[in-house]
Amino acid sequence: MRGFERAEYAARLAAAQSRMDAAGLGALLLTTEADLRYFSGFLTRFWESPSRPWFLILPRSGAPVAVIPSIGAELMAKTWVEDIRTWAAPDPWDDGISLLADALREIGGPVGVPSGRETHLRMPLGDFELLKAASGLSFVDGHGIVASLRAVKSEAEITKIATVCAVAGRAFDRVPEIARAGVPLDRVFRDFQRLLLEEGADWVPYLAGGAGPNGYSDVISPASETPLAAGDVLMLDTGAVKDGYFCDYDRNFAIGEPGKAARDAHARLIEATMAGLEAATVGALASDVFSAMAAITGGGEGAGRLGHGLGMQLTEGLSLSAKDDSVLRAGMVITLEPGIDVAPGRLMVHEENIVIREDGPERLTSFSGAEMPVI
Amino acid sequence: MRGFERAEYAARLAAAQSRMDAAGLGALLLTTEADLRYFSGFLTRFWESPSRPWFLILPRSGAPVAVIPSIGAELMAKTWVEDIRTWAAPDPWDDGISLLADALREIGGPVGVPSGRETHLRMPLGDFELLKAASGLSFVDGHGIVASLRAVKSEAEITKIATVCAVAGRAFDRVPEIARAGVPLDRVFRDFQRLLLEEGADWVPYLAGGAGPNGYSDVISPASETPLAAGDVLMLDTGAVKDGYFCDYDRNFAIGEPGKAARDAHARLIEATMAGLEAATVGALASDVFSAMAAITGGGEGAGRLGHGLGMQLTEGLSLSAKDDSVLRAGMVITLEPGIDVAPGRLMVHEENIVIREDGPERLTSFSGAEMPVI
Repeated sequence: MRGFERAEYAARLAAAQSRMDAAGLGALLLTTEADLRYFSGFLTRFWESPSRPWFLILPRSGAPVAVIPSIGAELMAKTWVEDIRTWAAPDPWDDGISLLADALREIGGPVGVPSGRETHLRMPLGDFELLKAASGLSFVDGHGIVASLRAVKSEAEITKIATVCAVAGRAFDRVPEIARAGVPLDRVFRDFQRLLLEEGADWVPYLAGGAGPNGYSDVISPASETPLAAGDVLMLDTGAVKDGYFCDYDRNFAIGEPGKAARDAHARLIEATMAGLEAATVGALASDVFSAMAAITGGGEGAGRLGHGLGMQLTEGLSLSAKDDSVLRAGMVITLEPGIDVAPGRLMVHEENIVIREDGPERLTSFSGAEMPVI
Repeated sequence: MRGFERAEYAARLAAAQSRMDAAGLGALLLTTEADLRYFSGFLTRFWESPSRPWFLILPRSGAPVAVIPSIGAELMAKTWVEDIRTWAAPDPWDDGISLLADALREIGGPVGVPSGRETHLRMPLGDFELLKAASGLSFVDGHGIVASLRAVKSEAEITKIATVCAVAGRAFDRVPEIARAGVPLDRVFRDFQRLLLEEGADWVPYLAGGAGPNGYSDVISPASETPLAAGDVLMLDTGAVKDGYFCDYDRNFAIGEPGKAARDAHARLIEATMAGLEAATVGALASDVFSAMAAITGGGEGAGRLGHGLGMQLTEGLSLSAKDDSVLRAGMVITLEPGIDVAPGRLMVHEENIVIREDGPERLTSFSGAEMPVI
């Protein structure tokens, strides 16, 4: 099934409203793709265009109100949201601001706006100032309400993440079809996206990776045109999407027989991943899971963290880092992502996806073994 | 060639600095993917992760300063930016804010922040308040400096857009391989993304479309599982990317012989496109080009506009709408995108990409003929 039952959206709204009540908020104003979709089910790739702002208001009681460009009216009408107000965007003189101010005034403030870690306000700052003035309401921090709800996944959400993890798993199994010595890395990247689509991904918002003897120089660069060579380690890391939910994991492959350093590093990464898995229990801190992995990799915090939350976005919520004291709760989906510096300027990373359960973590990906697959 | 010569970045910076000088700004603070990349060349898909903020400061004189997560240091060091300051992000207690405040204090304010149409501030609002307090500087509107520079493309940029337009053109030519009566629309979407990758796209951030007799119900919905049927019009609209630049255009196909209404509508869309092309001369207003097309389609402003700027983002800059009085300048790349309501709840759209030249518009796409291709 695509999307969710109406009851799921109703439950999300009720949970938000109960927290808004406790926080003394009259409304929550949402402006980003994931936040809007979480409460409405509005799913489109049209967010790729920055030209139009989109707004969803959650009132402290009652139904949500969508204040959106007319181009989205038809699609929003297919969601459970019934109160849909539109304007012909983009409007250079009033891009929905007076319509939004009216709607907020009807509902009343204070208006919470997500303002904490990982959030941003997806509307022009200039318009935000106009909105404050036009509404006459007070705008305050959103108290982390949306982030805290989104961090704990429903069974239906977990099923969607497991589904896209399986899609990527089938694509990873087919990497020997596309990668061998002599093939340029950018061709491998292109072909791997094709495999993900063939195996059922709706789209592929994220693909990173690298290749080289003893690992790669970083993990966020676009692919170079350098051909793979015997002795290279090839890493592919994907955030593919199906029905609006991400997987985020990687696989390392040896092009020909790997050197000892790379082979040992891979085995240690798997060992660290298993230590992270063991530590990922209800009530543990994000920093506990980090420590369990870092004890084996000897740190590797160059990336700032060794894993993170996952769901409607490639990364969301907690970070597995020394500084993050978030408490693991049942239903949280996270990645375990240890890294090792194999040689100066050369690192290797490994990543798996799991869900925290009352009786221990559950794997959403088919975990890699200690031995790197050889192509 | 991937990326740009150093001289291109130096010219972009110099142009910004001359405008900052005129506007009395001490610095510009940039936070979004396209703005950072325009001035630095920093190209990565890692922006898909919302967890880490990225900052680039343009001082009124001197070299740009990157204040970024350590995970990006290696890649940023490959650009022309030399002053790179990093922190281990994400940091729940100080996510780069004190580092950024220090850098801005060194340079001095007032600090311009893009705040106009289509912009947003990609950092938590809470952190922005902390930054204001920690720096002690005044933060003001960015005077539209970045948007105005990005609107006029260099020859190197135009070449990149033309290249990706050609990629999509080859993929559109191959649509008969993947679309026929009986094939579900979501399979067509998946396969068309594959064709784009095979023809040379680096990635496919945007694909929309629709299918039905006499057109489609909207143009932003994800694909349904409904199979194509004889008599349908199939529309595919893509924003594919190569080397960081987008194309944005569509093609309509008749599945079997089209009905008269759809055939006539297509011919009228092409006629409107040609009228838009003729009107798109240096000195014309965006609203003039809109009017030329609307005179033939009879409006069709349900989408709010009949075309827009194009470049590093799927849509950027001006809108071809009745309200937009932007003046066309040589080097602007725009889309012509008329729409027609064919029947109640059924529309058809058509889109081509052009660049404004001193001696008239130049086509970047191989324009469609009046007759819809039949599959």
